[in-house]
Amino acid sequence: MAPVHCRATHRQLLTHTSERFVESNQPNGHSAFESPEVSPAAERLRYILNEDDDMPTPTLFTEMDTLQREGDELEWKESARWVKFEEKVEEGGERWSKPHVSTLSLHSLFELRTCLQTGTVLLDLDGYSLPQIVDDIIERQIEEGMISPDLREKISFVLLRKHRHQTKKPIHRSLADIGKSSSASECLCYLSDSVTTRSMNDIADSPSTDQLKNKFMKKIPRDAEASNVLIGEVDFLNKPFVAFVRLAQATTLGGLTEVPVPTRFLFVLLGPQGKAKSYNEIGRAIATLMVDDLFSDVAYKARDREDLIAGIDEFLDEVIVLPPGEWDPKIRIEPPKKVTSADKRKSVFSLNELGQMNGTAGGGGGLAEDEEMPVQHELGEELAFTGRFCGGLYRDIKRKLPWLPSDFYEGFHIQTISAVLFIYLGCITNAITFGGLLGDATDNYQGVMESFLGTALAGSVFCLFGGQPLIILSSTGPILIFEKLLFDFSKNNNIDYMELRLWIGIHSCLQCFILVATDASYIIKYMTRFTEEGFSSLISFIFISDAIKKMVGSFKYYPINTDFKPDYVTAYKCECLAPDPSENQSEVLETLDWSQLSKKECLKYGGSLVGRSCKYVPDLALMSFILFFGTYSMTITLKKFKFSRYFPTKVRKKLISDFSIFMSIMTFVGLDMLIGLKTPKLIVPTEFKPTRPDRGWIVMPFGKNPWWVYLASFVPALLVTILIFMDQQISAVIVNRKENKLKKGCGYHLDLFWVGILMAACSFMGLPWYVAATVISIAHIDSLKMESESSAPGEQPQFLGVREQRLTGILVFVLTGVSIFLAPILKFIPMPVLYGVFLYMGVASLSGIQFWDRIKLYMMPSKHQPDFSYLRHVPLRRVHLFTFIQILCLTVLWILKSTFLAIIFPVMILGLMVVRKMLDMVFSQHDLAWLDDLLPEKEKKKKEDDKKKGKDKDKDKKKSKGDDSEEECSFIEYFLHRNTNPEPAVCAELPLELFMLN
Amino acid sequence: MAPVHCRATHRQLLTHTSERFVESNQPNGHSAFESPEVSPAAERLRYILNEDDDMPTPTLFTEMDTLQREGDELEWKESARWVKFEEKVEEGGERWSKPHVSTLSLHSLFELRTCLQTGTVLLDLDGYSLPQIVDDIIERQIEEGMISPDLREKISFVLLRKHRHQTKKPIHRSLADIGKSSSASECLCYLSDSVTTRSMNDIADSPSTDQLKNKFMKKIPRDAEASNVLIGEVDFLNKPFVAFVRLAQATTLGGLTEVPVPTRFLFVLLGPQGKAKSYNEIGRAIATLMVDDLFSDVAYKARDREDLIAGIDEFLDEVIVLPPGEWDPKIRIEPPKKVTSADKRKSVFSLNELGQMNGTAGGGGGLAEDEEMPVQHELGEELAFTGRFCGGLYRDIKRKLPWLPSDFYEGFHIQTISAVLFIYLGCITNAITFGGLLGDATDNYQGVMESFLGTALAGSVFCLFGGQPLIILSSTGPILIFEKLLFDFSKNNNIDYMELRLWIGIHSCLQCFILVATDASYIIKYMTRFTEEGFSSLISFIFISDAIKKMVGSFKYYPINTDFKPDYVTAYKCECLAPDPSENQSEVLETLDWSQLSKKECLKYGGSLVGRSCKYVPDLALMSFILFFGTYSMTITLKKFKFSRYFPTKVRKKLISDFSIFMSIMTFVGLDMLIGLKTPKLIVPTEFKPTRPDRGWIVMPFGKNPWWVYLASFVPALLVTILIFMDQQISAVIVNRKENKLKKGCGYHLDLFWVGILMAACSFMGLPWYVAATVISIAHIDSLKMESESSAPGEQPQFLGVREQRLTGILVFVLTGVSIFLAPILKFIPMPVLYGVFLYMGVASLSGIQFWDRIKLYMMPSKHQPDFSYLRHVPLRRVHLFTFIQILCLTVLWILKSTFLAIIFPVMILGLMVVRKMLDMVFSQHDLAWLDDLLPEKEKKKKEDDKKKGKDKDKDKKKSKGDDSEEECSFIEYFLHRNTNPEPAVCAELPLELFMLN
Repeated sequence: MAPVHCRATHRQLLTHTSERFVESNQPNGHSAFESPEVSPAAERLRYILNEDDDMPTPTLFTEMDTLQREGDELEWKESARWVKFEEKVEEGGERWSKPHVSTLSLHSLFELRTCLQTGTVLLDLDGYSLPQIVDDIIERQIEEGMISPDLREKISFVLLRKHRHQTKKPIHRSLADIGKSSSASECLCYLSDSVTTRSMNDIADSPSTDQLKNKFMKKIPRDAEASNVLIGEVDFLNKPFVAFVRLAQATTLGGLTEVPVPTRFLFVLLGPQGKAKSYNEIGRAIATLMVDDLFSDVAYKARDREDLIAGIDEFLDEVIVLPPGEWDPKIRIEPPKKVTSADKRKSVFSLNELGQMNGTAGGGGGLAEDEEMPVQHELGEELAFTGRFCGGLYRDIKRKLPWLPSDFYEGFHIQTISAVLFIYLGCITNAITFGGLLGDATDNYQGVMESFLGTALAGSVFCLFGGQPLIILSSTGPILIFEKLLFDFSKNNNIDYMELRLWIGIHSCLQCFILVATDASYIIKYMTRFTEEGFSSLISFIFISDAIKKMVGSFKYYPINTDFKPDYVTAYKCECLAPDPSENQSEVLETLDWSQLSKKECLKYGGSLVGRSCKYVPDLALMSFILFFGTYSMTITLKKFKFSRYFPTKVRKKLISDFSIFMSIMTFVGLDMLIGLKTPKLIVPTEFKPTRPDRGWIVMPFGKNPWWVYLASFVPALLVTILIFMDQQISAVIVNRKENKLKKGCGYHLDLFWVGILMAACSFMGLPWYVAATVISIAHIDSLKMESESSAPGEQPQFLGVREQRLTGILVFVLTGVSIFLAPILKFIPMPVLYGVFLYMGVASLSGIQFWDRIKLYMMPSKHQPDFSYLRHVPLRRVHLFTFIQILCLTVLWILKSTFLAIIFPVMILGLMVVRKMLDMVFSQHDLAWLDDLLPEKEKKKKEDDKKKGKDKDKDKKKSKGDDSEEECSFIEYFLHRNTNPEPAVCAELPLELFMLN
Repeated sequence: MAPVHCRATHRQLLTHTSERFVESNQPNGHSAFESPEVSPAAERLRYILNEDDDMPTPTLFTEMDTLQREGDELEWKESARWVKFEEKVEEGGERWSKPHVSTLSLHSLFELRTCLQTGTVLLDLDGYSLPQIVDDIIERQIEEGMISPDLREKISFVLLRKHRHQTKKPIHRSLADIGKSSSASECLCYLSDSVTTRSMNDIADSPSTDQLKNKFMKKIPRDAEASNVLIGEVDFLNKPFVAFVRLAQATTLGGLTEVPVPTRFLFVLLGPQGKAKSYNEIGRAIATLMVDDLFSDVAYKARDREDLIAGIDEFLDEVIVLPPGEWDPKIRIEPPKKVTSADKRKSVFSLNELGQMNGTAGGGGGLAEDEEMPVQHELGEELAFTGRFCGGLYRDIKRKLPWLPSDFYEGFHIQTISAVLFIYLGCITNAITFGGLLGDATDNYQGVMESFLGTALAGSVFCLFGGQPLIILSSTGPILIFEKLLFDFSKNNNIDYMELRLWIGIHSCLQCFILVATDASYIIKYMTRFTEEGFSSLISFIFISDAIKKMVGSFKYYPINTDFKPDYVTAYKCECLAPDPSENQSEVLETLDWSQLSKKECLKYGGSLVGRSCKYVPDLALMSFILFFGTYSMTITLKKFKFSRYFPTKVRKKLISDFSIFMSIMTFVGLDMLIGLKTPKLIVPTEFKPTRPDRGWIVMPFGKNPWWVYLASFVPALLVTILIFMDQQISAVIVNRKENKLKKGCGYHLDLFWVGILMAACSFMGLPWYVAATVISIAHIDSLKMESESSAPGEQPQFLGVREQRLTGILVFVLTGVSIFLAPILKFIPMPVLYGVFLYMGVASLSGIQFWDRIKLYMMPSKHQPDFSYLRHVPLRRVHLFTFIQILCLTVLWILKSTFLAIIFPVMILGLMVVRKMLDMVFSQHDLAWLDDLLPEKEKKKKEDDKKKGKDKDKDKKKSKGDDSEEECSFIEYFLHRNTNPEPAVCAELPLELFMLN
C-alpha cells in the first residue's frame, strides 16, 4: 500500500544492513561461525572513543516533536522528552507521564538503522539558524538526487512551523480536533495562495520567555546540549525524508526546544501518509539512542555515517530483550534504582575485552554468577598500627584539623534544626532517666542536676574537639551499675565515695592515655559486622525493653481500679483517719482537720487512709499508654510518609519526614494539654546547685581516705577503662561504618583521648562519667543524612552521605545545659511521650541491620524472601545457622546483662569477637564474605589476590579461581588437608590467628 | 581463540541468516524499502498455525540442565526451569530464585537462530528412551558429516550422564569444588579405562520417587509436556554439537526431568571449552522461546527447520527492547500483573493484519494512543424492559432457578466461616444500634428484640429466595427517620401507630408489586459510576461518622475528671445525702442507710449526690478509645498482612487476612477481659417477647383507626416505596458491579418482589422494615472474594469472582435469630470493639472506589500520581473538575441528610442522576467514558459505531475517527453547531434525552 519509505520488516532490513559485513567475511555458510574477537563496529568505536578521551561530552537533552494540525495551521507539538528516561506527553491527558524506561521495538531500531544508512547525514554543519540549517539539508538531498527540487518549498515550509511545547497552557481542544490533529491529511493548504503571503518561518530567533521561565531547566545539567527529533507525516512525499545533523557549534535555535538549551543534534523524519505510528517509534528510538551514554559519545565523535551505524550496532549488542509473552509492552517500567555506569560500558572499548563483552551483555537473570564477592570491610589507615608513640593520635589530629572550619559552616542548614531538636529530646530524656537512677544508686551524690551538667559539659567538649563529632556522649548502663556497686562498697567499708571515685577517674584517664599512645585502638579491626551488629542490636533491644518497662511501670504506679462500677460511685472514697487518739502525743495533730489533708500529709502525720479508692489512680495509666503508643506510631507513620505519593517531595521529605519526631511530640503534648490530665511530666531542676546539699562542685583529691586507696583504685580503674574503651570504640565503629559514607574520616585515638580527659574532669567535679551512646549516635547520623536532589527525572535520589559537622552536637549539649532555664516550657512534656520517642529510637536503630533482616527470613517462606545478594550466594540453611548463632550469642549476653555480670558487659563484646573467630571453622570464607566481613589478615591476602586477578583478568576466570582456592579454604578443610598431607600448604598460617585473640 | 563454534557477533549472524531473504527480494539497496504487507516468515506461520487450530497444544514445562563435574563424575545439573517465567538455581544459594521475566540478550537469540540453522533438527522422531534418541541424533550428525564417527562414544557418554535436580537435597560442596565444577576441563577421564567398565548410561527408565514426590508438580498443568534443554562444555569438540528434537509422542525419559512429565522436545548444545556463559545464554533463549505461547505452537506444528526459524523471527519481531543505559540487566524483573494473551497474539495470524502487526509490536510507552476507550458499563438483559406483565420477574426466576442447588453446595468452604462471623457481627451490631434507636423513636413499640427478630426473619427469607442472595438486608437510616416522624404524627393525632404502619406496609407492598410487574427497575440503567460511587461513598462516610460519633459519645457518657490530682485522692468522693427531712413524707426512706445506696437508688429515693467525683467515671472512656482504635487499626494491619512476605501464602491469606476482623475482635475482647474494666458491653435480649409488654406478635389490621386512614396511608406508602426502591436497587447495582465478576446473574425484579413481601410480613408482625444495606453487602462480597491459586510460578493470582451462594447469608441470619440464646457469650464483647468494626467497614468500603482515588489526586503532585488509565486520557484539570462536582453533590446531600429532608434521602439519588445527565453538557463523551460510564442511549449507538469500526479496522484509524466524530460531540458543540448551521446534524437527538429524566 504505502510506496517507497523507510519502513520494512526487520528481516529485510537485516538483509540490507548486513551486506557490508558480507564484504569483510567469507560469504560461505560456515564463515559466520568463525568468531574474530573484535567486530568491525566495535573496532570503529574503539578508535573514535579513544581519540581524545579527556574531554567529556555534554549531557544531551532530547525533545521529540511531531507534526500536528492545530486548527488550520500545522505546528510541531512536543510529544516526548528525555533527560535520561522518557517522559511522554499523555495523549489527551495534556500532561507529562512519569519518567519511565523507554521500551523500544526491535523493529524500530532496525528501521532507524536503515534511515541513517539511506538518509542525509550532515556532521559538523555550520548552523546559526533553523532556516539556514533546513536549507542546507534540503540542498544536500537535492544534490544527492533523493528528492526532486520542487519539494524544496514544501519541506522547508513544514520544517519551519512553530513549535508548541508542553509547558504552554493548553488551549481547550475538542475531541473532534484530536481526531484530526495527528494527521495533517485534510490540510493541503500549506502552499495555497492564502498562505504563501505569510512568512515561511514561524520560528523565533531568540528564546521566548516561556523557555526561560521553564522550571524544568533545573533538572537539566548546566552543560547540557539539546538534540531535537522532528517526526511528521505529510502528503506530498512518497518516500521518507530523513536527515541527521550535528552542528559544529551548539546553537540556540529559537523556540525549537522547550528549554533554553542550545541544540547540537537534529534528526528529521518526514514520511508519506499512513505510517505515523511507525515514524513515532523511529523517533523514540533515535531519541533513546541520543540519551544513551555510549551512543551520545559516538554521536559527538562520529567521523561519518558508518560510525553512527556502528554506534547503533553496539547499542543493539547490549540491549536487553524481554519476551513478548512474559511482558506487556503497555506497562511503563519505572526507572531502576541503579544502572550500569556509562564509564563501565565505555571502558570496554579501551581494554582489550571486546570479545568477552558480547558474551556478558544483557544476560539478565543469568548473570548472577558474574558478581564479584562483596567489597571488603575497609577500615583504612585510621586503624593502622603506627608503632610510634602517639602515632595514631598525631595522624588523627592531622586528619581532622583541615576539616575544622567546614565542621562549622556546613552546619548551617535547615536539617540541623530538626536534628538538634530530636537529639536534644533524646539527650535530656536520657539525662533525666540516668540522673534519677544514679541519684537512687548513690544516695543523691550524683543526681539529675549533675547528670544535666555533666552531659552538657562532656558532650559539648567532645563535639568541639573529638575525632568523630557525630558521636553523642551519654551515661550508659554499665557505668550506672559500676557506680552502684562502688557506692555500696564505699559505704560498707567507710571509704569516702567521691574521693575514691575521683582517684578511679584519674587512674582511668591515665590508662586511656596509655591506650592512645600505644595505638591500642587498632585491635577493633577485628570487629566485623557480626560483632558490630550483635552489639548494636543488643543496645537497641535494651532501649526497646526499657521503654516498654517504663510504660508498664506506669500501670503499676497508677493502678487502675478495675472493679469500679459507675453506678456505685458512692461507694468509692478515700478518707484520712486520724491515728488512735490514745497514742496521740502531739497537740498540733489534734487541731488538724484530718478530712482536709492530702494523701501525703495524712501519711506524714501518721493518719491512715481508709476507703476503696485509696490505692487507685484513675485515667493516668491509660492516658500514658495512649501518649506513649501514639507518639511511637505517629512517628513511625510520618517517617514512612516519605515514601507516599502525597504532597511535593520537598514537603514530604524536608518537613514531614525530617520533623516527624518533633511533630509527633508536639501533637501528643497538645493532646495531653487538651485533655488536661495530670500525666507525669518532664521535670528538670531549676536551680543550679548540687543535688545533695552537703557536697560542692569540686571534689578534693586528698584527705578523706587512707593513702593506699589512691593506689589501689588502679584496679577498679582498669575495669572502667576496658568498659569505656569497648563501649566507646564499638559505637565509633558503628558510626564510622562505610554505609554512612563519611568523608571526613574518623579519629578513634583522638576520641579516646578526650573521653579520658573528660573522665578526669567529671571525676573532679563529681559528675557522672560519659561514653559514646550507640543508639543516640545512630539517631544523630540518621537525622543528618543527605540525599541528592535527583537530577534527571526518574533518577532515584542517591544517599550522598551525612552532614558531618560539629554544630548539631554542640547545640544539643548547650541546649541541654540551658535546659535548667527552659523548665517552664519543658514541664509540659509528658514522660510517656518521651518513652515513645525512646521506643522509636530503639526500633529505628534496628532497621537497616542485616542481622535483623536475617531474623525476619526465618518467618518467610523462601519464595517470598527479598532478593538479598547474600541469598543468591549462600545456601539458606547456612544463613539460618549464622543467624541462629548470633541469636544464641545475644541471648547469652542478655542473660548475663541481667545479672551482676552486667558490669563487664562491654568486655563481653570481646567474647563476641572470639565467637566470630571461631565461626571461621564452621563457615567457609566465601559464606562469611557474604554474611559478614573477612578478618583483617585475610583481607590483606585478598587484596594481593585481587591484584593478581586483575592481571589475569583476561584469562578464564574459572581457572584463576581454581588457582586462588587457598584463599577460600576453611579451617575444616585445612585440618582435613593436614591429615592427608604431611606438608601444610598455604592454609597453615591460619591457626595462629585463631588463637591470637584469646 | 575458540575455533569453529556456534557463536558469532550478531552482525555476522545477520549476514548469514538474511541471505535467504536476499533471494526473495531484489538485491539492490532500495528494494529493502519496499514493504510487502506479509513477510515470508509470517506467511509460513500463518499457514502452519491455521492448519488445525481446533487442537490446543499442551503447556510446556522447560528444564535447562548444564553439564557439571561433581567430584570425579560428570553430571547434568538443573540450572533453571520455566513454567511461564524463569526460575533459576541460585549459584551457591542452592535454591530457586523468585520467578522472573527472562531477560535475554539479543545476541543469544541470534546465536540460537544460527544454531537451529546449522544444527540437527529432528521432527517427530520416534523416541522411547534417551539412549535411543541420543543414538539417533548422533547417527544423523555423522550422516550429515557434521561430526566424525569417532566422537560417537564420547558424545553419547556425556549425554547419558545422570541428572541432578534442584529438588534433591544438596550435598555440602566446598568452595574449591564450586570453582571447578562449572567446567569439566580437568576431567579428561570419561573415556579412560577405569570408566569404560562402567555403564554408559546413568539414566533410569522409570520416574524416580524424587520425581513423583515433587510438590512442584501442582504448579504444572495436568496436560503439560516437558522440553529439556541440555547445555554443556566439553573438551573433545572443536565446533558445537547442536540438536533440536521433537518426539512423535511425549515420552517419560527416566530422570531427565525434575517432575514426572513426559518429554516432547529436546534441545542439546555441546560446545568446545571456554564459552560456557555464551552457551548458557543460548540455552536460556531456547528455553524462553519454548514457553512462549506463540513459539511453542510453532514448535508443535513446525514441518521443517524453516518453520522454526520463522518462529524465532516472529518472536524477534515482537520482543521488547530495553536500552542498556536505562536498565541494569542484573535486576530481575518481577512478572507483570497482566500480559498480552496468547490468543490475541495468535489471532494476528488468522486475520489479514500481518502488515499492521509489525507496526504495533513492542511500542512500549508509545503505545498508549492505541488503547481503546474503556469497556462500556454492561447491564445486560437483566434490566431490559420486556414490555410484558411480570416479564422481568419471570426472567429473573428463570435465570436464578438453575443455580439453586449450587447456591448451597458452593457454600461449603472454609472461607464461609470467616465471612459468616464477620457479617454476623456487623449485623447484630446494626440490629442492636438500630433497635436501640427505634426503641427510643417509637416508645419501644419496636425495640432491640423486634430488631433482632426482624433482621433474622427478613434476612433469611431474602437470602433463601431473593434474586441476589449476596445482598444483606438491614435497617437503614431513612427508614428510621420515617418511623420516627410517623410515630410522632400518630401520637399527636391519636391514630394507632401500629395499625397505621401495617396499612402503609400493605400499600407499599402492593406498590412494589406494581413496580415489579411493570419492570420499573429498568430505570436504574441510568445509574452510572457517578451515581453509584456518590451513593456508596456517602453511605461509607455516614458509617465512619457514626462510628466516630459513638466513640466521642462515650467520652461524654463517661466523663473524665481532668482535675484529678493523685495526691488529693482524699478530696474525691460522692456521697448520697438524704433529702431534706422536713419534706420527707415516707417512713421507708427514714430507715434507709443513705450512705449505702448506689447512685441510681439514691436518685430514685430523692437523695442528692454530693462530692467531687460524682459526675466522673474513671478509665472507661480511655479504655473504650483504646479498644475502638485498637480493633480498627489491628484489622487494617492484618488485612494488609496479605501483602507482606511473612509466612506461607495460605496462612497469610486464608488465615490472617480472611479472619483479620475475627482475630482483632478476639484480641481486644481478650484485652478487655484481662483488664476487667466495666466497659459498655453488647447486651442482647435474652427472653423472647416483645419489647413493649402491651403489644403482641401480630398486629390486627382493623379496629383501632377510622376507615379513611386505611386508604389515606397510600400517600405515605408511596414515599416509603420510592425510598425502598432506590435504597434497594442502588445497593443491588453496586453489588452487581462488573468488577465483582458475578456469574450467576442478578435479579432486580425478584429482589424487589421479596422486599415487598417482607414489608407486608414485617408490618403484620410489628417488626421494622428492611432493605438492602450497602456497606454490609459490600463487606459480604469482599469477604467472599476468590483468587486463583496461581498456576505458573510468578503468575499473579487472578481475582476469579465471588463465592456466590445463599449459605453465608442464611447462616448469618439464623445466627442472628439464635443470638438471643448466645447472650452469655456475646455479653463479653465491648461495644467500642464493635464500633471499631463499624469504622473498618466504612473505611474498607471506600477503598477501591474511583471517586476516592480521584480525591486523593488533589493532594498529589502530578508527577507522583499513579498511572490510572483515565489520567493518560483526560486532562488533569478535567479530572479535578469532575471530582469537585462530585464532592459538591455529596456535600449538598450530606447537609440535606442532616435536616428533616433525610427522609427523602434515597430520592435525592435521583437528583444525582440528573446532575450526571447535565454533566454531558460540561464534559465531552470521551472524558466521561474514561471517568464515568456513558448513558445507555449513547451506549447503543456506540455499539453500532463499534461494529462499523470493526469493518473499517484495516483502514486508517484516524480517518474513521474523524467520520465517527458525531458520537463524540458534546452538548456545547451541539449548541455551537446549531447556531451556525440551520440543520441540526446527528447530535440533534441528544437534547431529548437530557430532559427525559426531569
